[in-house]
Amino acid sequence: MLLSGERIDQLYADGIQIIQSKEVFSFSLDAVLLANFPNLPKSGKIVDLCAGNGAVGLFASQKTKAKIIQVELQSRLADMGKRSITLNKLENQVEMLELDLKEAATVIKPDSVDLVLCNPPYFKELPTSIKNPNPYLAIARHEIHTSLEEVITVSAKLLKTNGRLAMVHRPDRFLDILHAMEQAKIAPKRIRFVYPKEGREANTLLIEGIKHGKKDGFKVLPPLFTYDEDNNYSAEMKAMLYGN
Amino acid sequence: MLLSGERIDQLYADGIQIIQSKEVFSFSLDAVLLANFPNLPKSGKIVDLCAGNGAVGLFASQKTKAKIIQVELQSRLADMGKRSITLNKLENQVEMLELDLKEAATVIKPDSVDLVLCNPPYFKELPTSIKNPNPYLAIARHEIHTSLEEVITVSAKLLKTNGRLAMVHRPDRFLDILHAMEQAKIAPKRIRFVYPKEGREANTLLIEGIKHGKKDGFKVLPPLFTYDEDNNYSAEMKAMLYGN
Repeated sequence: MLLSGERIDQLYADGIQIIQSKEVFSFSLDAVLLANFPNLPKSGKIVDLCAGNGAVGLFASQKTKAKIIQVELQSRLADMGKRSITLNKLENQVEMLELDLKEAATVIKPDSVDLVLCNPPYFKELPTSIKNPNPYLAIARHEIHTSLEEVITVSAKLLKTNGRLAMVHRPDRFLDILHAMEQAKIAPKRIRFVYPKEGREANTLLIEGIKHGKKDGFKVLPPLFTYDEDNNYSAEMKAMLYGN
Repeated sequence: MLLSGERIDQLYADGIQIIQSKEVFSFSLDAVLLANFPNLPKSGKIVDLCAGNGAVGLFASQKTKAKIIQVELQSRLADMGKRSITLNKLENQVEMLELDLKEAATVIKPDSVDLVLCNPPYFKELPTSIKNPNPYLAIARHEIHTSLEEVITVSAKLLKTNGRLAMVHRPDRFLDILHAMEQAKIAPKRIRFVYPKEGREANTLLIEGIKHGKKDGFKVLPPLFTYDEDNNYSAEMKAMLYGN
């Protein structure tokens, strides 16, 4: 079941076990934040784009009966994700597609998805970018094979009218995200900023938009702190990681 | 010095006295937040648009040697502001212009201002809007005589290249603000969300943009809470109101 260098980690809040590897890919706090951000549809279809080793979809699976389709370009990561689906006996609910997201709408029916989840590469691919020498991590973190604009365009194509896109990203890309959503006719509706602790700038944002949604009703949700004053996880973060 | 119904209030943090009136206009917490948000230029020229009774400029005057020009359309409010300037002996630093901001660039030299401060009317003027029957307050709160777009366009005209616009507004107008800034070639750079208390949605935003600024480097500053868990002003709010 495990390849060299792989281990099984557990998210205690969900009871989900995940196959990962320091050398290839491990899920981050951002995956946990994203899986806990949107109100999940009770049924229907959820797509996780840039799924990596499948953490977001696996976490989400414990809170909904919707079908979850994961799309991951990198064969090595998709393979880990497939084995985690089996490990958790989720074959009837979760499916991992090894697929370039450019092709997603040829496999998943356009205008059919209730919710797209996406934890995309955060960093612009520039000639000057310092990239991780590990190609798995470089592709997961830098816009080498896709871009913010493409991820959002593909999401818009897959979503039903009034379907939602929920994304985790970095605040310094916030204006780019808003532009790309506007181009794709996804109306931003809810945003939550994640601050490492009180008195610090936000280092993460969670944003949800609605396909063909009205432009009014934009909300800035309560701030989320990752750590408390003693540098322990905050109560809310603990609940996401370890359960209540 | 005082007209009927007027009183003198003091902002203890700054030692500034302000003439105001329940029936006509009193400054709000938002004026205090705005005056404390941007790094004020040490010298040069600051313009306060939609100045009301002049609170923002009066507070700012204690933290800079820059000249401060206040622009207020409503004669009754501008008159209160002029008397507050005299009351605080600030005639050499602060000037109140009774002026429609549409005309601001005919009186204040275009491309000459280091910082524009603005606490504009928050609410869209719609046929269905429920407005305050008090015309002073209706004009101050609703976009009757100006609009977000106009305020930002006029600010851009007045500002030097690399001059800054700092504004306080409501989160539900956030996307409109970003659009209007982009149209006016003001690059949003710093934003701070103000939450009434922990666990609540933001009800105020502070935003600063730079005329002809680069588009990168957008920062989400630490959250500001108005009240603490016991419904007293937070430590940061207390410092703004009562000093350290």
